Amino acid sequence: MAGKKASPLVGIVMGSPSDLPTMELATGVLAEFGVAHEVVVASAHRSPERAANYAKTARRRGVQVIIAGAGGGAHLAGVLASHLTIPVIGVPMQTDALGGMDSLLSTVQMPSGIPVATVAIGGAGAKNAALLAIEILALSDEGLSKKLTAYRKKLAKKVESASASLSSREN
Amino acid sequence: MAGKKASPLVGIVMGSPSDLPTMELATGVLAEFGVAHEVVVASAHRSPERAANYAKTARRRGVQVIIAGAGGGAHLAGVLASHLTIPVIGVPMQTDALGGMDSLLSTVQMPSGIPVATVAIGGAGAKNAALLAIEILALSDEGLSKKLTAYRKKLAKKVESASASLSSREN
Amino acid sequence: MAGKKASPLVGIVMGSPSDLPTMELATGVLAEFGVAHEVVVASAHRSPERAANYAKTARRRGVQVIIAGAGGGAHLAGVLASHLTIPVIGVPMQTDALGGMDSLLSTVQMPSGIPVATVAIGGAGAKNAALLAIEILALSDEGLSKKLTAYRKKLAKKVESASASLSSREN
Amino acid sequence: MAGKKASPLVGIVMGSPSDLPTMELATGVLAEFGVAHEVVVASAHRSPERAANYAKTARRRGVQVIIAGAGGGAHLAGVLASHLTIPVIGVPMQTDALGGMDSLLSTVQMPSGIPVATVAIGGAGAKNAALLAIEILALSDEGLSKKLTAYRKKLAKKVESASASLSSREN
Amino acid sequence: MAGKKASPLVGIVMGSPSDLPTMELATGVLAEFGVAHEVVVASAHRSPERAANYAKTARRRGVQVIIAGAGGGAHLAGVLASHLTIPVIGVPMQTDALGGMDSLLSTVQMPSGIPVATVAIGGAGAKNAALLAIEILALSDEGLSKKLTAYRKKLAKKVESASASLSSREN
Amino acid sequence: MAGKKASPLVGIVMGSPSDLPTMELATGVLAEFGVAHEVVVASAHRSPERAANYAKTARRRGVQVIIAGAGGGAHLAGVLASHLTIPVIGVPMQTDALGGMDSLLSTVQMPSGIPVATVAIGGAGAKNAALLAIEILALSDEGLSKKLTAYRKKLAKKVESASASLSSREN
Amino acid sequence: MAGKKASPLVGIVMGSPSDLPTMELATGVLAEFGVAHEVVVASAHRSPERAANYAKTARRRGVQVIIAGAGGGAHLAGVLASHLTIPVIGVPMQTDALGGMDSLLSTVQMPSGIPVATVAIGGAGAKNAALLAIEILALSDEGLSKKLTAYRKKLAKKVESASASLSSREN
Amino acid sequence: MAGKKASPLVGIVMGSPSDLPTMELATGVLAEFGVAHEVVVASAHRSPERAANYAKTARRRGVQVIIAGAGGGAHLAGVLASHLTIPVIGVPMQTDALGGMDSLLSTVQMPSGIPVATVAIGGAGAKNAALLAIEILALSDEGLSKKLTAYRKKLAKKVESASASLSSREN
Repeated sequence: MAGKKASPLVGIVMGSPSDLPTMELATGVLAEFGVAHEVVVASAHRSPERAANYAKTARRRGVQVIIAGAGGGAHLAGVLASHLTIPVIGVPMQTDALGGMDSLLSTVQMPSGIPVATVAIGGAGAKNAALLAIEILALSDEGLSKKLTAYRKKLAKKVESASASLSSREN
Repeated sequence: MAGKKASPLVGIVMGSPSDLPTMELATGVLAEFGVAHEVVVASAHRSPERAANYAKTARRRGVQVIIAGAGGGAHLAGVLASHLTIPVIGVPMQTDALGGMDSLLSTVQMPSGIPVATVAIGGAGAKNAALLAIEILALSDEGLSKKLTAYRKKLAKKVESASASLSSREN
Repeated sequence: MAGKKASPLVGIVMGSPSDLPTMELATGVLAEFGVAHEVVVASAHRSPERAANYAKTARRRGVQVIIAGAGGGAHLAGVLASHLTIPVIGVPMQTDALGGMDSLLSTVQMPSGIPVATVAIGGAGAKNAALLAIEILALSDEGLSKKLTAYRKKLAKKVESASASLSSREN
Repeated sequence: MAGKKASPLVGIVMGSPSDLPTMELATGVLAEFGVAHEVVVASAHRSPERAANYAKTARRRGVQVIIAGAGGGAHLAGVLASHLTIPVIGVPMQTDALGGMDSLLSTVQMPSGIPVATVAIGGAGAKNAALLAIEILALSDEGLSKKLTAYRKKLAKKVESASASLSSREN
Repeated sequence: MAGKKASPLVGIVMGSPSDLPTMELATGVLAEFGVAHEVVVASAHRSPERAANYAKTARRRGVQVIIAGAGGGAHLAGVLASHLTIPVIGVPMQTDALGGMDSLLSTVQMPSGIPVATVAIGGAGAKNAALLAIEILALSDEGLSKKLTAYRKKLAKKVESASASLSSREN
Repeated sequence: MAGKKASPLVGIVMGSPSDLPTMELATGVLAEFGVAHEVVVASAHRSPERAANYAKTARRRGVQVIIAGAGGGAHLAGVLASHLTIPVIGVPMQTDALGGMDSLLSTVQMPSGIPVATVAIGGAGAKNAALLAIEILALSDEGLSKKLTAYRKKLAKKVESASASLSSREN
Repeated sequence: MAGKKASPLVGIVMGSPSDLPTMELATGVLAEFGVAHEVVVASAHRSPERAANYAKTARRRGVQVIIAGAGGGAHLAGVLASHLTIPVIGVPMQTDALGGMDSLLSTVQMPSGIPVATVAIGGAGAKNAALLAIEILALSDEGLSKKLTAYRKKLAKKVESASASLSSREN
Repeated sequence: MAGKKASPLVGIVMGSPSDLPTMELATGVLAEFGVAHEVVVASAHRSPERAANYAKTARRRGVQVIIAGAGGGAHLAGVLASHLTIPVIGVPMQTDALGGMDSLLSTVQMPSGIPVATVAIGGAGAKNAALLAIEILALSDEGLSKKLTAYRKKLAKKVESASASLSSREN
């Protein structure tokens, strides 16, 4: 499995290697925050044993949050969640035919009993999945919590400078 | 598991006992055609081991076709199919919030490699799932094949008499 | 604010008192797991200051996870999340006109930077929001973690007995 | 803030600088009608204080109508409206995944009590937002009202000449 | 035409008398704010001359804002707007078959040049249409403006007491 | 086949006797206009020969326009049209699960070459199907044409009286 | 108005000159069948008088069927139909944001009383609108009727040769 | 008809030659498994006799499973199924305007009595249609059954190596 040296806290699972460009937006954020993570491909349908095994061994390896990206009839997050009691975050991939509405509904409409924390379709969702994982980890990691606050300030600053540069351009 | 005396040829699996009223439309058709079947509840999410075990042992018990009914983020048919190379038919349940669009997309939008034969949302789908299973079994069962032909004739007859009674009522 | 004696770990916020019947499915689960929580009404639109204040003071009061239920153009979870770096879980309410598709898209399609952990529309979502909050808290609470494992076993058992009673009824 | 010399009557707010190409269709119309306006970036989620402050100070600065453009879970118009009793016009941005259906529902499905005047998705909406703002301002500005009447005549003329040039081409 | 003694400032038009129960939520708000209004039935399709005449004479009679409620292929607001340069607010009616998605898209997706200020589907939309009309009128009516501020405070208060009564009930 | 004494000019075909309550809104209009018609049940799927035969013999019997009502995967109008070069009008039935969106798309999205004149989902569509058939027949029947003009005047009158009774009630 | 020398039997109206590439698929079919027609631009919203006048004078000029193409909140066909008792065929344009779902629902969901014969979204719809107009005219024009039969035979032949060339390529 | 030397077991029918690039994904899989098949073009609408004849003679020629690909108002699979009691698999084509939602609903929402086994929209569906056909044939063909098991193992392997190469790249 792909990972940083430290024992991974976040496991990123994708149903297909074609999901990588989107999911790298999640790994990018985790790297930026210095959160150890691993990246694996494990299809709920083409490799069900692998997916189940990944889920069953994740916690043992120290993983605390799972991020699962899948598209179409996106069962991956739900299938992982069925084997786990740690938080599973689902990222619905954008799809050609239906834009990702299929991925979104397959991921979010989980039956009562087994939650999946679903984020937005596509890239914004992948980024936010990483941030959500960090928010969860930060509950017991003061350092991460401070980084999050700083990150938010930076976001607000960027909005401000975008507005300022707009203003100067117009005048 | 619920079953007829004979070794079951069709396995009907539903994600929740609340799907029973719909799925009984499938068992009714199978009974009408004299096709041995078993009925089980096995949630892909709440009882993943049970669902996987059901799938893995089905063929050994003589099951030739699976019918899986589930609603919402309906992963059941796909999860069973991931463990099986016999045909799996998915029945998307009607749902309160989205009418069953969520069940339909979750069931039908399977990734390349693992097919699920999806039928209509709700009761018509459950009936047709049974008929599709029978069509599959009839390929190597002349008796069933004849019953199917007779069934179709009966359907056409019913349309004709409905039309006739309409006509007589109008005159 | 409505609350248990202990300092609340989970804050349940709803946009309107009419969301209460749904959100009580969340409080029920939290109570079952013995997780201290508070319940407040705070509309993102009708009482923006109240909503912002709630968000800004939540952490200080010990709240670790927020569950926000809202319907239609459901901005509540996003607005709370904009003021918070603890996890915010959004429950999209079912709606008369569009079934809850409006609530779902308003809640889940958050822009990059501010995550909302979205669960299913309506009652199943409310229950799962509570379970997700518990999964998050359980990362640093061994007792809760054990309760979750027990809960999952109970779910699987229920599926098994439902199947068994089906079977006995059929025979 | 970006603006014309005169005290701005219309405030154009966008959630992200990437919305600028669309929102410039609004500023273009306002400029054409000689209506003083200001353009700012203020995200409801990434810069909630900035958005709230903008709303709270807008009227004081003479702003009479707000135009807010945002995409996805588009909360901006609703969040601004929650702090304001002057008309807020929402422009739902077109989005990659869902075409803008998410932006539209998030913007228009406001709860009872806090209206947002929603226009069409994307560029046509941005233009019409400016025209709607001008219609509102024209209620107490005879000059603007005449310009609107002239603008409408020009629109009708354009249709006529398009039809005529079609006709001549065909003959 | 149905109206208060004073010259009407708001004209409420509905495509069919069956829209009345919804549109009375608008007249109720206008009455509460003491805004003179008239209520007429004028179908864009069944009585096109009547609809056009209403639009063409509205301003002359002192009407400053139009509220148009219609369902299905809801053309009424757009047809009125094509004859008017005062603000037209469209209320999409909830519909049996498609929930009001048809009414919403027909009303909001106006082509560039002719704006319709669209509000939410059904009752919440009707109420907000009246409030939006009042916001527009209040730009040049200090008294109305104060009433709006008071109304908003009352809304916020109601949220607060709902929360308080929830809290006391729980304890 | 159900019919009036005169040779039928309009053939009303429905896929199932359960469509009758809706389709009787069409026969009601035809009767009101004195247009001879016949009513038959002929499913495109359950009785394909019957449907094809109906289409192939319709013109010979004097039928000039076909109205076909069907729901779900509504193929009836398209199947009839494939055998006919007289106008075929499709009425999409309202459906439980998807409201009739399935019926609508199945009926209207015909491939280039074989048109189906599609009307609104459900009852309004059935009525309008009859009126459209009458408009077509009226092109060569002056009497029908006058009745249509009178019918439209009556519609406009009804709108006017509805408005008047509203007005008197309010005053 | 654009037209052939003979008095036009079909009037093609489009809401915007940008609809021309699609609507030329309709004029192409009419030309192929030798049906005299005229082509005009007349927006229901930007040029309401022009649209109404076109409708009111069409019949007088000999027009027997109207084809109206419009996109988005597509009111054109309905507005023309409100002034006419000859058949009006609506072609919903494909749109950027919502694919044409907005155009389709705005065109097809007409209220009871005023029918619009709606065809498929975009180019297939434009072609079929022309064929539907020809089917209507052919009811009283034996020559056209024969051409339609020939056209259908040609369609079937094309399918056959496509199949044959496929077959030879494979072998 | 396009075919391999051996009597075809699977009949692939497409509504238009433009569906070929998608449907070749199905023929590719069948060829890979050595399953004799034939490929024909037969439109349900443009060549109804041809489609009916194909269906009626298929079984006689030894065909055991039909795969039908069509787009838009996709009636082909249903029309073939109405004449057949062997399994018919429907592949909904992706479409420009609505992404394939129209094809999907037209194909899957079959009325009770006549099943169509529907797979995913577009290429993944075409591939899975072939695999589903093979699963059906494999019920009475031990060799095919073994090939299917091998195919699944290969799929799982591919997932594993994709994951491994990801891992090595990251390290």
